[in-house]
Amino acid sequence: MNILVINAGSSSLKYQLYDMKDESVLASGRVERIGMDSSIVTHEPEGRPEVRIVDEILEHTSAIKRVLDMLTHPEHGVLSSVQEIDAVGHRVVHGGEAFKESAVVTPETKLEIRKLFDLAPLHNPAHMMGITAVEAVLPGVTQAVVFDTAFHQTMPQQSYLYPVPMVLYKRHAIRRYGFHGTSHAYVSERAAEVLGRPLEELKLVSCHIGNGASATAILHGKSFDTSMGMTPLEGLMMGTRSGDLDPAIVPYTMNKEDLTLSEVNSMLNKHSGLLAISGLSSDMREITEAMFDGDKNAKLAFEMYAYRVKKYIGAYAAAMNGIDVLLFTAGVGENSVVLREHVCDGLTFLGIKLDKELNAQRSKEARVISTPDSSVAVMVVPTNEELLIARDTFKLARQRGAEQA
Amino acid sequence: MNILVINAGSSSLKYQLYDMKDESVLASGRVERIGMDSSIVTHEPEGRPEVRIVDEILEHTSAIKRVLDMLTHPEHGVLSSVQEIDAVGHRVVHGGEAFKESAVVTPETKLEIRKLFDLAPLHNPAHMMGITAVEAVLPGVTQAVVFDTAFHQTMPQQSYLYPVPMVLYKRHAIRRYGFHGTSHAYVSERAAEVLGRPLEELKLVSCHIGNGASATAILHGKSFDTSMGMTPLEGLMMGTRSGDLDPAIVPYTMNKEDLTLSEVNSMLNKHSGLLAISGLSSDMREITEAMFDGDKNAKLAFEMYAYRVKKYIGAYAAAMNGIDVLLFTAGVGENSVVLREHVCDGLTFLGIKLDKELNAQRSKEARVISTPDSSVAVMVVPTNEELLIARDTFKLARQRGAEQA
Repeated sequence: MNILVINAGSSSLKYQLYDMKDESVLASGRVERIGMDSSIVTHEPEGRPEVRIVDEILEHTSAIKRVLDMLTHPEHGVLSSVQEIDAVGHRVVHGGEAFKESAVVTPETKLEIRKLFDLAPLHNPAHMMGITAVEAVLPGVTQAVVFDTAFHQTMPQQSYLYPVPMVLYKRHAIRRYGFHGTSHAYVSERAAEVLGRPLEELKLVSCHIGNGASATAILHGKSFDTSMGMTPLEGLMMGTRSGDLDPAIVPYTMNKEDLTLSEVNSMLNKHSGLLAISGLSSDMREITEAMFDGDKNAKLAFEMYAYRVKKYIGAYAAAMNGIDVLLFTAGVGENSVVLREHVCDGLTFLGIKLDKELNAQRSKEARVISTPDSSVAVMVVPTNEELLIARDTFKLARQRGAEQA
Repeated sequence: MNILVINAGSSSLKYQLYDMKDESVLASGRVERIGMDSSIVTHEPEGRPEVRIVDEILEHTSAIKRVLDMLTHPEHGVLSSVQEIDAVGHRVVHGGEAFKESAVVTPETKLEIRKLFDLAPLHNPAHMMGITAVEAVLPGVTQAVVFDTAFHQTMPQQSYLYPVPMVLYKRHAIRRYGFHGTSHAYVSERAAEVLGRPLEELKLVSCHIGNGASATAILHGKSFDTSMGMTPLEGLMMGTRSGDLDPAIVPYTMNKEDLTLSEVNSMLNKHSGLLAISGLSSDMREITEAMFDGDKNAKLAFEMYAYRVKKYIGAYAAAMNGIDVLLFTAGVGENSVVLREHVCDGLTFLGIKLDKELNAQRSKEARVISTPDSSVAVMVVPTNEELLIARDTFKLARQRGAEQA
C-alpha cells in the first residue's frame, strides 16, 4: 500500500510517498511559493537525482496536480499511475478538543477542522486547502488527518487549564493544547523500542528542539504535560519565539510602544527568542559558532535557551516524580552536541550522567548518550513525523477497507 | 533605638514600632480608608487592648500624624515623645535596577523611586506619599527604604532577561525583577539559623505563598531565580492572579472579548487564579474547606495551584542541581497543612520525605517538617518582613550616625 503524506502550508506544500510494506520512502519533495511569482517544485525520487522546476502555480489544486505529475513522470516518477496511491495523510496543526487521535476525512471532519481556524489561523486553513485539492484531483481516495495536538489530549485538567476566568475556556476554548504531538509520540515509542523497555512503564521527558521547540512530560506513554500552550508561543525559548514571559509584559509593551494586537503577536512570534537576544540569528548553528568566536550576545542567547530547557526538565521531573528517559529530537536536539551537553550539565541530582564521547558522535540512528551508570537514559532520537502520519493513515485506510469489504 | 516601620498603600498605612535592643514590637496598627469617608485607625500597644478610632483622614500626612499621636498618647501610647523614634523604615515595592540593597532616603533616592512609578504604578507613588508625610511631620529623622526587589538583584542575566527584543530592556527596563525579596531573604536566613548550617552552603527553594505567591531559588544565600517577573503577575497561580500562561492568550482574549489594556490587566490580576477556577473564593482556607465538602471546582483550583508550585520546585532544583532546603512561608505556606502535603507528595526523586505529623502540628516557630532521613530539609518558616525592614533601617541609621559623629 502506498501512502502519500502531505504537509500543506499557505504558500507551500511538502510531500512524501511511502511504500508501507517496508515503510520506505519512494519519493519526496516540496512546492514552494504557491500563488507567487515563479513557484518552485523540487522532487526527489529515492536514490535518483533531485529535479527542480520553476513555474507559475497559482493555488493548491495545481500544486497537487504537479506533485502527481512528478510521481508518475516517465523519467522522474516512481509510480505508473495515480491509482497506485492508496491513501493520503495530511498533517494538521490544530485538532482542538475534537480530535484525540487521527481521523479519516469526512464532511464532519472537515467541519470540525474549519471550526478550529480561529485557534490556528495560519495553519488550519492551509491544511484545508490541501485536503480539498486532493479531493478535486484524486476523487474517492481515502484521506486521513493527523494532528499536532492529538497526542496531548490525554493531559489532565491541572495541566491543560489556565488559571483565568473559566468563561474563556467555555466561550473561546482557551486552554493548553500543546503541539509537536506527532513527533513526541513517535520519538517516545522509538526510545522505548531502542531501550527494549515497555513505554507504559516509563517516565519520559521529550525535548523536541528545532526552529519551534517544546518539552513534553510523557507518563507511561501518555502526554501528561507539555510546554507549548494554546498556541505554539508558550514554553521554551525558540528561534524567533519568546516562549514564557510575564503576561503583563504584553499590555505594557503595547502601551509603551503603541503596538496593535497583531504587531505584538508578530514581535513575540517572529522577532524574539534567539534572534532577539543574539541580535544575529535564529539558527542555533550560527549562534553556537558565534559563541565559540567570542560573541557575548550569542553566548547569552545560548545560555538562556539551554537554561529554559533545563528548567522544564526539572519541572516535568517534579510532575512525574523523577524521570527514566530524557530524549532530544528535531534539528537542534538531534544535532547540537554542545546544547545537549549544556542542558545535561548539572543535572546529577536527577541521576543524569552524559557520556561526552557518545554525545559527540554523529549518527542518524536513535541512540543512548548517557553512561551505563546514569539512572536516566539520555537519548538522541531522530524524529520522523511523516512516517507517523503515513502509519496512522495506513492504519485508518486498512480499517476503512475492512469496514467496506 | 526605636524604629518605626511603615508600609504605605494608596489608601492605607500599616505601622510597627520596634525597640531594637531586643527586636520587640512596642506597638503596631494601621490606618485604613485614607481619603475616604470614615477612615479607621486601629492601634495595638503590645500587651494592651486594641484601640479603634473612626475619623476623617484626608491624606498621608494626617495619617502619619495620627499614628504619632497614638504612639505618644497618654493612655494608649508607648513613647513619651516622638523624639524617641530614632529612624523610620519604609517598605517600597519596586527598586528597579537602581537599588540592590536598602538605602537611606535622600533627594537622589527619592528621584530614583519616582523614576520607577511606571513599573509599579499602584505601589511606588503611595510609598512616596508615606516618605514625604514623615518628612513633613518628623523633620530631620533618618528614613530608610527597603525594597521588595532588591534581594533578587543578584540574579544572573539568564534568569532575569526575557527572550524579547533587547530594545524593550534598554528602553523600558522590561526584565524580571522579582518581588517578596524581603520575605525570601528573611526566611532563608532564618532557615539556615534553625538548621545550624551556613546559608552560604545551601541550595534552597523558598515558597512564599500568601495572597500573592512566589518561589525563589536561593543559591548560597543569593537569589538565583524567582517566579515573579517584571510585575507580580508572573509565576505561581495566586488568589486572584493567573501566574504563568501562554502570552498569546493576552492579545487573543483582548480581541475576542474586546478588552482594553487595563481591562485585560485587571482580568489577569484581579479575576483569575483560585477565584476564577473555583468560582468561589481567592482564599485558600475557603477553597480547602469546599474541596473537603466535595466541591469539584474547588478541588481543581487546589490541584492546579499545588501542581504549579511543584513544577517550580522541580525547575529550581534543575537550576541549582538539587536542593537542600525547601521552605514554605506566608499565609498559605505557613498555615495550609494540606497544601504543603500535596506539594511534597511525589517528590521523593528529590529526596523529600515529609513527616505528616510534624507537618500537621500548629506552631508560630520556624521548624523542620521532614523526616530525619529526608535528604531535603522541608521547613515552615514564618515570615516577618517588618522585622527585616526594622533591621535594615537600624543598620543604616547606625552607619549614618557613625558617619556624622
